[in-house]
Amino acid sequence: MHSLFAPISAPNSEFHQRALDRQLQLTKPPGSLGMLESLAIKLAAMQGRDQPQLNNIHISIFAADHGIAAEGVSAFPQAVTAEMVKNFAAGGAAVNVLARHLKAEFEVIDVGLLAAVDLPNVIAHRAGCGTENFKTKPAMSLPQLDIALAAGQSAVHRAVAVKAELFIGGEMGIANTSSASAMAAALLAIAPSELTGAGTGLNNQQIDHKAAVIAQALQKHQKYLDTPLAILQYLGGFEIAALTAAYISAAQQGLPVVVDGFISSVAALIAFKINPDCAAWFFYGHRSEEKGHKIVLQALAAEPILNLQMRLGEASGALMAVPILQMACRLHNEMATFTQAHITIG
Amino acid sequence: MHSLFAPISAPNSEFHQRALDRQLQLTKPPGSLGMLESLAIKLAAMQGRDQPQLNNIHISIFAADHGIAAEGVSAFPQAVTAEMVKNFAAGGAAVNVLARHLKAEFEVIDVGLLAAVDLPNVIAHRAGCGTENFKTKPAMSLPQLDIALAAGQSAVHRAVAVKAELFIGGEMGIANTSSASAMAAALLAIAPSELTGAGTGLNNQQIDHKAAVIAQALQKHQKYLDTPLAILQYLGGFEIAALTAAYISAAQQGLPVVVDGFISSVAALIAFKINPDCAAWFFYGHRSEEKGHKIVLQALAAEPILNLQMRLGEASGALMAVPILQMACRLHNEMATFTQAHITIG
Repeated sequence: MHSLFAPISAPNSEFHQRALDRQLQLTKPPGSLGMLESLAIKLAAMQGRDQPQLNNIHISIFAADHGIAAEGVSAFPQAVTAEMVKNFAAGGAAVNVLARHLKAEFEVIDVGLLAAVDLPNVIAHRAGCGTENFKTKPAMSLPQLDIALAAGQSAVHRAVAVKAELFIGGEMGIANTSSASAMAAALLAIAPSELTGAGTGLNNQQIDHKAAVIAQALQKHQKYLDTPLAILQYLGGFEIAALTAAYISAAQQGLPVVVDGFISSVAALIAFKINPDCAAWFFYGHRSEEKGHKIVLQALAAEPILNLQMRLGEASGALMAVPILQMACRLHNEMATFTQAHITIG
Repeated sequence: MHSLFAPISAPNSEFHQRALDRQLQLTKPPGSLGMLESLAIKLAAMQGRDQPQLNNIHISIFAADHGIAAEGVSAFPQAVTAEMVKNFAAGGAAVNVLARHLKAEFEVIDVGLLAAVDLPNVIAHRAGCGTENFKTKPAMSLPQLDIALAAGQSAVHRAVAVKAELFIGGEMGIANTSSASAMAAALLAIAPSELTGAGTGLNNQQIDHKAAVIAQALQKHQKYLDTPLAILQYLGGFEIAALTAAYISAAQQGLPVVVDGFISSVAALIAFKINPDCAAWFFYGHRSEEKGHKIVLQALAAEPILNLQMRLGEASGALMAVPILQMACRLHNEMATFTQAHITIG
């Protein structure tokens, strides 16, 4: 049995109840901190402690190329994947700025760029030189899928080794909204036109073309798309497979996760379909502008923390939510109780 | 002429355009950072600089008592106002925890508690011993209104003196959602039942009673409610008057403001009705759960940054939005441009 199917423990129900009780004693009307209360309670249960905290954040960005880019489904040329990896390595991308602000551990993993980049701070865990064009072929072979899954698991092992308190995965790969849209359509049995969106900036005509390409691919591979792992293999990307395995692995090791936007949420949905207990370990950072995100969030019964009209990927939306989680922890831990403050409660 | 009517300059349009241009050069699809782009651009224009920043935050919490509490319109007894002021002074309230997290300057001003508290770190700028019960009498006299307005202006002067880059006001006062609901109903000519909500936790029957009390008060004072300042005097609270004057004063001095929830937004609406140019200097921290907030936000054409289902007041929702603004600044200032990163843009 693949290690992805190994069991996942539930967050600690005793600490959940203790956190719930404490929230009712803090100097505020019950419920008046809204989502900040439920976030702190959830994290206390995940961490199995009375004082949840998020000081040590681990960010892994998985990058890979996509054969489907040949179909003209992205507003940017394929070369941008590797160029952005260099930008990550040089510290100039959005995710770098946010990682610095959060004093987070940050790493970039090449899971399968068209050509390897020779940069000391990019981890090479390559499953291939980009995926195949999934309009006509399976995106990857089974051995390639295994390598990509292992890349995700390795990232989580590194996070656990440095005692990370939160795992955040991100992705970069020109054309990967096409892959994610195809997978979501297959997983949820929804027409591609229902969830195919603008990605990095397509116009309506280009979106129609992208949806048509995806519909052809689904038709072509239909009879093989009978398990979540088969959907990953036939329609996926190396970075999406890595994220999927990372999410499951984090849950198996009791490490809380913040899921980013559309592509990451599709990885979370596949993870959920593979090993449903993993979802108890997920927070959802934000509601993306990408069309399909709403549908995928619904399928996950997810309530994102933020809605900032972002659609960038590379973990940016998840990172924006970290201060909210941190402040929720501090409120939970540091506010006075009614008794401590000698306050009349009615 | 009262200093509230003194002119307010618009944010700098040249720096607005420069910030807009820069956003289009950063290494991301145009628009993909959503609201983070518009927040950074707005702040660059307010601060008149290419690199907006928010390192120095000033928080002023205005506290006062309300005669209308005698009508049984709050879930908490009136004694809680002073008890919470002591909690602020001792560092145990939500706002204290958030202020520490943000390393912000924090002060509490007694604008009119029932009885003065003898605490060294509470600023006394008292307009009276609580307001009158506005169901039967004007909430305050004109001289009292002037003192409360001056309390808000003084707070902003202190903020400017320490070179604050952001002003955040908050309020504490048992029964002050009744006052704010009455003012919003009068300002917007809306029936009290349309915007009266649960406050700290009323049930539906209690909300109906609260709306009925407000409707009686509006009927009683109807012929006097012909200017925003008259509405403040007849229906307001000392802390709401202080917030109103603080918002206008901050705008007059070019100091950006983050408005908190329902009560603060009513103060912002009065400020806007008194001196409309002030609104160009406002951010809105969050969408509160209090029923009337949606209507008041619409009247201000406001787009709040967060929606965390909070309803606490005491500046808590505004403070939660500060990291979002800070991260928006850092993204704007620190991301590489396409040229710097040698990225192909299509």
